[in-house]
Amino acid sequence: MATQTQGKTGSERPSPGQTQEARYERGLKKMAEIYGVPVEDFIAPLGDLGRYMVEFPYGDIYSRDGLAARDREIATIAMLTALGGREPQLRVHVNSALNVGLTPDELYEIILHTLIFAGFPTAINALSVLSDVLSKRDGGQKSV
Amino acid sequence: MATQTQGKTGSERPSPGQTQEARYERGLKKMAEIYGVPVEDFIAPLGDLGRYMVEFPYGDIYSRDGLAARDREIATIAMLTALGGREPQLRVHVNSALNVGLTPDELYEIILHTLIFAGFPTAINALSVLSDVLSKRDGGQKSV
Amino acid sequence: MATQTQGKTGSERPSPGQTQEARYERGLKKMAEIYGVPVEDFIAPLGDLGRYMVEFPYGDIYSRDGLAARDREIATIAMLTALGGREPQLRVHVNSALNVGLTPDELYEIILHTLIFAGFPTAINALSVLSDVLSKRDGGQKSV
Amino acid sequence: MATQTQGKTGSERPSPGQTQEARYERGLKKMAEIYGVPVEDFIAPLGDLGRYMVEFPYGDIYSRDGLAARDREIATIAMLTALGGREPQLRVHVNSALNVGLTPDELYEIILHTLIFAGFPTAINALSVLSDVLSKRDGGQKSV
Amino acid sequence: MATQTQGKTGSERPSPGQTQEARYERGLKKMAEIYGVPVEDFIAPLGDLGRYMVEFPYGDIYSRDGLAARDREIATIAMLTALGGREPQLRVHVNSALNVGLTPDELYEIILHTLIFAGFPTAINALSVLSDVLSKRDGGQKSV
Amino acid sequence: MATQTQGKTGSERPSPGQTQEARYERGLKKMAEIYGVPVEDFIAPLGDLGRYMVEFPYGDIYSRDGLAARDREIATIAMLTALGGREPQLRVHVNSALNVGLTPDELYEIILHTLIFAGFPTAINALSVLSDVLSKRDGGQKSV
Repeated sequence: MATQTQGKTGSERPSPGQTQEARYERGLKKMAEIYGVPVEDFIAPLGDLGRYMVEFPYGDIYSRDGLAARDREIATIAMLTALGGREPQLRVHVNSALNVGLTPDELYEIILHTLIFAGFPTAINALSVLSDVLSKRDGGQKSV
Repeated sequence: MATQTQGKTGSERPSPGQTQEARYERGLKKMAEIYGVPVEDFIAPLGDLGRYMVEFPYGDIYSRDGLAARDREIATIAMLTALGGREPQLRVHVNSALNVGLTPDELYEIILHTLIFAGFPTAINALSVLSDVLSKRDGGQKSV
Repeated sequence: MATQTQGKTGSERPSPGQTQEARYERGLKKMAEIYGVPVEDFIAPLGDLGRYMVEFPYGDIYSRDGLAARDREIATIAMLTALGGREPQLRVHVNSALNVGLTPDELYEIILHTLIFAGFPTAINALSVLSDVLSKRDGGQKSV
Repeated sequence: MATQTQGKTGSERPSPGQTQEARYERGLKKMAEIYGVPVEDFIAPLGDLGRYMVEFPYGDIYSRDGLAARDREIATIAMLTALGGREPQLRVHVNSALNVGLTPDELYEIILHTLIFAGFPTAINALSVLSDVLSKRDGGQKSV
Repeated sequence: MATQTQGKTGSERPSPGQTQEARYERGLKKMAEIYGVPVEDFIAPLGDLGRYMVEFPYGDIYSRDGLAARDREIATIAMLTALGGREPQLRVHVNSALNVGLTPDELYEIILHTLIFAGFPTAINALSVLSDVLSKRDGGQKSV
Repeated sequence: MATQTQGKTGSERPSPGQTQEARYERGLKKMAEIYGVPVEDFIAPLGDLGRYMVEFPYGDIYSRDGLAARDREIATIAMLTALGGREPQLRVHVNSALNVGLTPDELYEIILHTLIFAGFPTAINALSVLSDVLSKRDGGQKSV
């Protein structure tokens, strides 16, 4: 499998001469695209951790061709819910998930799906985050 | 959000008069569809736990309309990888994921995606399961 | 074991013709009994997740004959403590545990018992929840 | 609560002049009682970790009066199941639980109960341990 | 290994006649040394849990000769970060780590190091705790 | 803190024009240094996951100046123990830890230290890995 996968994904590998600067710029652009807002203010206070977040999760992983952004956010919401105790990141990624085309109902379905693998408490906590984000995005409008 | 979601998903709610037997049959059919093989031999040794698995994860959750089977397996593979220590279930769901249309390369991408949220050890363990399942399905052929 | 257990618990299996409505009603009654208060307002905002909570944890699991409610809450408090990050549910189940007959001192003992299997941080967090719930139930009276 | 609990449990506090040797002996006796077999061979290879296990979990916690051994094993089985990845300890405590009076069916019920709080994969893994321990204790007899 | 380690660490073993009172006093002194402040007010509300914390983590483990306090806090910060959901204890131990000689930059490096093994969400949460503790210790001075 | 740390660690930041190839080479060298053996055979079967492991954990994080390799392995052993279910990686890093100067007794102390934060089961599992690695490195000699 590895050889196979290695081969198929080989074209996504950055050319050896690619600079770190290019990788950072690619990550910054991808991160802003996922977050739906400019991210400089978010990453600056994190120091090198912010730089690594731009470079590795966004410059490397999210920038790969093999999985759509929508699919990545399905995986992300499911993991952040099931692992528990990651509410700040779940809040960010509920917004990201909506930005890349997942609907509120689909997010609700993903949270329901986690019941099978992680039980009810983490799902209830995630639903609380989802409801809060949605009500804030609605600007308090109940009708959306 | 809740009212909204409740409303939109209301049509998926089993009619109040639906029997437990109908729910069990629906779950058994869905589970066999996801697993790709008859599941009676798998669930029988589990006793009531097997019955609940048919009824709740498959009769209730997987049978909902709001999220495609492919999307559900993306979430499942990501969670089982990130939570760690669930290798037997990961093995089952790598097969399920392939059955519902995810490709080996997409499964590889999902495992890479978990690096962001759960680090390298659980991803490496999951890749080991993926490689093993793929080589078994290939009947030892390296060329697939 | 499975066959044995399956056989012994067979009498608890709902008759095949039992309707979903009957299961929901049984769950609602059991959940209110455990919580000690009417639960409709708690589950309504959760949408289908609320319905599943009534049906599966309370209509199916808590309604089984093989383990007393007091024993179930011992297991529940221990798990919610040891898993960590599930404080809202721990708060609910401290109240449930008191409702089904566990004493404040027994809850304190269960939290101490988790030290062996999950260490000090989660036990200290759980003790904080326990103290808070007890002081609220006392109406601020220190003497109880 | 703390003051209250502190007061009520104060009588269980070992007298200040009690020696470490007495505590170790108490732990060794309690541990053998729970395990149902002499434990020296089990703890010797662990070095000081074995000594601490005798002293703290068994000499201190299990020796407290406030919670019965049966209740402690309910909590233990639930935690070891829900936390996952602790199969060797689950194996030991399935035996301990049987030794202090829990029945195979009650252990099965505790595992079912964890479904609510930790989902299906860890419960299925625990059931596998339970089945294996029970078949070994039966000496291969299916009829017990 | 066990025999070897057992042998080498044998000198750290409290003499069999040592009293519980001596162990408690040793733990109290060690805990105050690590925390950098008197700890009676911290442990009193915890009841016996507070006593056990003095005795076992501080009287037994932290008092061992085989690992420096600085090394212990490296392990502690890494674990509390990676496990997640233990922010109150992380807050305490960021202070402890600074007290035993780790610098703010070293704590930042430890948090970065956890990225490898537990991913970004828990590291970001830990960085938030670190920043908050440091700004409070600075008395709001940005220049330190 | 962030600005401060960012400033202090700024000199460790790779120059913007540094190529990915240079980063990969730095990671490969650092990884071999930590592992104590050539690592190409280890990473090749992992495909891009192997490349990322070279680049991010070793090329970026382990290559930072702010924390010694010995300190990094203290954190690593503690995390892998406390998180549980990561035995293959623990096995690798017990060897790494010995390579960078930690002694068997210090590794034993780190495992004991995890008792405070994660309880006994994960520590016992880690001790089993430690004993096994040590006996293999000894070539079966008991006297080391």
